[in-house]
Amino acid sequence: MPSLSVLGITKQSHRRLTPFSFPSRDFNTYFYTQKLDHFNYRAESQATFQQKYVINSKFWGGANSSAPIFVYLGANAPLDDQIRRIGFMTDNAPQFNALLVYIEHRFYGQSTPFGSSEEAYQNDRTLDYLNLSQTLEDYAEVILDIKKNLSANNSTPVIVIGGSYGGVLATLFRLRYPYIALGALASSAPILYLDGLKPQLQDGYFSIVSKDFREASESCYNTIQQSWSEIDKIASQEDGLSVLSRRFNTCTPLENSSWLKDALKLVYAAAAQYDAPQINQAVNLICTAIDRATNGTDVLDKVIAAMFAFFSKYPGPHEYCDEMHQWAWNWQICTEILIPTGISGTDTMFQAEPFNLTSYKETCKGLYDLRLMPEPFWITSQFGGQQQDVKLVLGRFGSNIIFSNGLRDPFSAGGVLESLSDSLVALPTAKGSHCLDIYAALPNDPDWLIVQRRSELKIISQWIAQYHMDRAANISYI
Amino acid sequence: MPSLSVLGITKQSHRRLTPFSFPSRDFNTYFYTQKLDHFNYRAESQATFQQKYVINSKFWGGANSSAPIFVYLGANAPLDDQIRRIGFMTDNAPQFNALLVYIEHRFYGQSTPFGSSEEAYQNDRTLDYLNLSQTLEDYAEVILDIKKNLSANNSTPVIVIGGSYGGVLATLFRLRYPYIALGALASSAPILYLDGLKPQLQDGYFSIVSKDFREASESCYNTIQQSWSEIDKIASQEDGLSVLSRRFNTCTPLENSSWLKDALKLVYAAAAQYDAPQINQAVNLICTAIDRATNGTDVLDKVIAAMFAFFSKYPGPHEYCDEMHQWAWNWQICTEILIPTGISGTDTMFQAEPFNLTSYKETCKGLYDLRLMPEPFWITSQFGGQQQDVKLVLGRFGSNIIFSNGLRDPFSAGGVLESLSDSLVALPTAKGSHCLDIYAALPNDPDWLIVQRRSELKIISQWIAQYHMDRAANISYI
Repeated sequence: MPSLSVLGITKQSHRRLTPFSFPSRDFNTYFYTQKLDHFNYRAESQATFQQKYVINSKFWGGANSSAPIFVYLGANAPLDDQIRRIGFMTDNAPQFNALLVYIEHRFYGQSTPFGSSEEAYQNDRTLDYLNLSQTLEDYAEVILDIKKNLSANNSTPVIVIGGSYGGVLATLFRLRYPYIALGALASSAPILYLDGLKPQLQDGYFSIVSKDFREASESCYNTIQQSWSEIDKIASQEDGLSVLSRRFNTCTPLENSSWLKDALKLVYAAAAQYDAPQINQAVNLICTAIDRATNGTDVLDKVIAAMFAFFSKYPGPHEYCDEMHQWAWNWQICTEILIPTGISGTDTMFQAEPFNLTSYKETCKGLYDLRLMPEPFWITSQFGGQQQDVKLVLGRFGSNIIFSNGLRDPFSAGGVLESLSDSLVALPTAKGSHCLDIYAALPNDPDWLIVQRRSELKIISQWIAQYHMDRAANISYI
Repeated sequence: MPSLSVLGITKQSHRRLTPFSFPSRDFNTYFYTQKLDHFNYRAESQATFQQKYVINSKFWGGANSSAPIFVYLGANAPLDDQIRRIGFMTDNAPQFNALLVYIEHRFYGQSTPFGSSEEAYQNDRTLDYLNLSQTLEDYAEVILDIKKNLSANNSTPVIVIGGSYGGVLATLFRLRYPYIALGALASSAPILYLDGLKPQLQDGYFSIVSKDFREASESCYNTIQQSWSEIDKIASQEDGLSVLSRRFNTCTPLENSSWLKDALKLVYAAAAQYDAPQINQAVNLICTAIDRATNGTDVLDKVIAAMFAFFSKYPGPHEYCDEMHQWAWNWQICTEILIPTGISGTDTMFQAEPFNLTSYKETCKGLYDLRLMPEPFWITSQFGGQQQDVKLVLGRFGSNIIFSNGLRDPFSAGGVLESLSDSLVALPTAKGSHCLDIYAALPNDPDWLIVQRRSELKIISQWIAQYHMDRAANISYI
């Protein structure tokens, strides 16, 4: 299938390129008996599944201490992998005496209903229960249940935290359940992409990828730009696809050149998205390999050298070798999470390939027997039909959300980069990449990242302080 | 069945006791092909139904004029009847150059899916599509469709208006779809009742009914208070139920005294709820009949005289004669709209009959094969689990809602009577009753009602002015 979305498809790269730590004994795993269907009341809809969540209470001040609960809202991946990476939670729990909670997203990891992934991903009848409304309500119920078990009442505020798609969830959760979550930290959440049928926005993602490479090396950028027609040229020759398969060492023989080009595109995208000076130098690594290739080496050899360098340094399944049966995520991007990315202009290092809604829908139709697409999109009816509406509407509605972004992250093209109001605050960094702020602090973190995290913590502290002041003001209503 | 809720059961009284006008030719009826199920994407869920809406464009300034759309969100009744009563819309459209839109609630009137009421109300499989999430999304889609048809963009703000349960819908709609509705006028919306398992709140409704009667006449109050044991006494005698049936002229012979007492209670409740000096004097009418009854007449004769006076003046099907197959509403109050009203104390004119959740659930279980009840209640997760949370949470979240109430309305016990923030404004009147402000203005309206309506219009004007200022401020986002 053609790649429907850059979001999610770079999961393998995410694993390779981001820091993680092994969980300690302070993390305890639980399962909540969750309703499969929150929005039907008939007896028939009583099916449940086991939803996984993890609690770390090492730092918690207790239900009577007015200390908060930090809740990480799991995104489209198994929870354990995310827990190891979201160092922001453990790093900052001590200063808040916070309880740490991590909740797995339905249909991912061990929170898959119907007994097994095979059953759950089987068809549109089972996947139908995988949608945002159900997912948000899952989180609401788990949080309320945990608070009940801990005898925590409204003196225990909840802050929800999420990154990327999880940041979208955190944003929506605060807007929809203000009573449950006092505030949200939404890291690298491309919420404006969800509107997104504007060409300008659609081009944003790969424009930033190109910019990142161009800043690293003009000649590298040029080489990559030239490589596409070179691939096309060889592919059009007799036996050309075999040549390409052999030279790129693909797992299975190529059937067309698009497949190879998509795979390369995703490697460049992942390198740009997760590039971070103190963790990896993914863009530099690729560009150095390209630029240092022996004089006289042809364009393709340079690109192949770059791939070799990249996958030697960051081993793991290749984008273009891994089957990745990511049926759950594909269902989501075919129904609710449309992130339109294309390349309509000629000012990138990629070949033009404008986003095409019709072929997108056709691809989805080929995958699932579904009603395509929800119109108006469920998400945009929450945020506004056009980008400027986000400011117009949320500028005077809602509160307590931090939108953090790094401008070198291609997804920042769909991020909220200007504050919408006093308490809907944007915290962009010029040099940051995807979700950097919610990963663990490292000794060699650059100053701008330290400052960004410090700002986030200060804002969250203010939310909590104001909340307790409001409560103490003895607000008795009726 | 026992009466589950006072809300809705007084629909007949509503018809009798409130002013209405016949619709003019300016009202045009349309039908929108609505999705039966907004939250499933599988092909199977493609069923639709025809949702009725009515437009009056006589006063509209047009899509380019920045004039607003007033949208009346239909409540639990056929739309036509509501259109005739919501005079606030037509009264005030000229001054705003507003387009008037009225949308019928799914499963009521002509907006019943499955072809007929019989089919639609058949069982839990069909009624399952009757819930708040679906209803709110219906309204969102109809409004967006109307705007699209009129080529109206974000220069045309939308104000949603609703009364009673419809006021709850208007509140939820503004909170959930801030992009679609700039603001909401929620008249007599008992949103705090939806939390409501607190005895203090549960008693509110009938406490206010009693207070209204006591203020009208202490002796009337005493007579009613004495009548219940008198009914019990006769009922316990041999052939007593026949005596009661004959004296009260019931449609069918009474099988127990509770049924008669419930019916009387609902007449008193309706009289108090809709009592309005310039329209009817329902409470006075009843009390005058009771107090003027000949000296020596027994307590029951006095009550019977009052019923005779009431139903002579306001004819129509009696509460205790009409079958009222209100299956749709019963489904709603058995699943999502729990309005717990009971009488636990002895300081009312009624016999003690505390609200009993267990028997409430049993009654519902007898009616439908459903999963009882949603826990935590869907609605309270929007507003907060406890009453004081409404202020704590919405005090710093959300904007542009007017909560209007009349304190003589028994439902004001569950109304928002204090402003939650600068733009979540309470407008209570000491002498008002249920939804008085959204009915048509009358020549003999009391000053306090004129002032209340004027305040509402001023606030709505301010919302609209501020919105256009924000737009004009040339907010360009991204």
